[in-house]
Amino acid sequence: MGRSADYSSQNCAVAAALDVVGDPWTLLIIRDAFRGISRFDQFQEKLGLARNVLAARLKMLVAEELLSARVYNERPRRYEYVLTAKGADLALTITGLYVWGKKYVYGEHKSRVEISHKTCGHPLVEPICHCAHCGERMERKDLVFDRDEDAITIGELKALKGKVD
Amino acid sequence: MGRSADYSSQNCAVAAALDVVGDPWTLLIIRDAFRGISRFDQFQEKLGLARNVLAARLKMLVAEELLSARVYNERPRRYEYVLTAKGADLALTITGLYVWGKKYVYGEHKSRVEISHKTCGHPLVEPICHCAHCGERMERKDLVFDRDEDAITIGELKALKGKVD
Repeated sequence: MGRSADYSSQNCAVAAALDVVGDPWTLLIIRDAFRGISRFDQFQEKLGLARNVLAARLKMLVAEELLSARVYNERPRRYEYVLTAKGADLALTITGLYVWGKKYVYGEHKSRVEISHKTCGHPLVEPICHCAHCGERMERKDLVFDRDEDAITIGELKALKGKVD
Repeated sequence: MGRSADYSSQNCAVAAALDVVGDPWTLLIIRDAFRGISRFDQFQEKLGLARNVLAARLKMLVAEELLSARVYNERPRRYEYVLTAKGADLALTITGLYVWGKKYVYGEHKSRVEISHKTCGHPLVEPICHCAHCGERMERKDLVFDRDEDAITIGELKALKGKVD
């Protein structure tokens, strides 16, 4: 995978997500899928990364079921790649990175991708979050980080699922 | 930096955020800072990564002003590392990764870090988001991804700010 971190001995859900999407380029492929890009040559043109690296990332994302591959041309056979529900559930992560990058890096400068809220047309800024359980406002100070010493590692999880590293 | 992706020719706020926090381990250091870890040896013990790699990441995070270094011992001089507002603004990204990792990888298994909502005590699941402008509910389908062809690249932004790569 060309990834330089091995998260298999980590035992946390944040690391588990990074184990799938944390390698370079993967989240940018997901970002492009959110904005409707679906074909190999489009991804390649937008990202400017090597074709073999892009092919490996797309293959991994299909294997991990974040993208589904659909044939759009039979001769020659060509696939397009569309976000599954699992891939689309990265919206909060992509939103978080976008809002942070706009606030602290881009500032008033134009980003190639500009996300806005369809309902009011305003550019996206950090959303106001409410707890899905109690409905109350949930700010950063309202998050409690507990430690669970019985946690299972990512490597053990994969072994359980038959996906040995 | 030991990073294997060069984002300087990218021109998007998501890539700009990944340019700072997208290298392996950085988001896990931020995660640990959220749960109150502040000292070098604590980070090293929790993450199990090489001391030189950790030292380089902490130095970068202080230089980028995501962490601030404070002396907590004079002889020998020791620092602790605490999230700045800029670092703490990664809460949405960390939350997004955590919720996704719990849902799709950890499932019913225990993660070492368990995030919950202080107000109701329930485990964190994907929050309900409202637009900070109009206050309306904001779901994935309500996000519009526009393209801006006049976007500036990350490399150009750094040059403007005097931070040449």
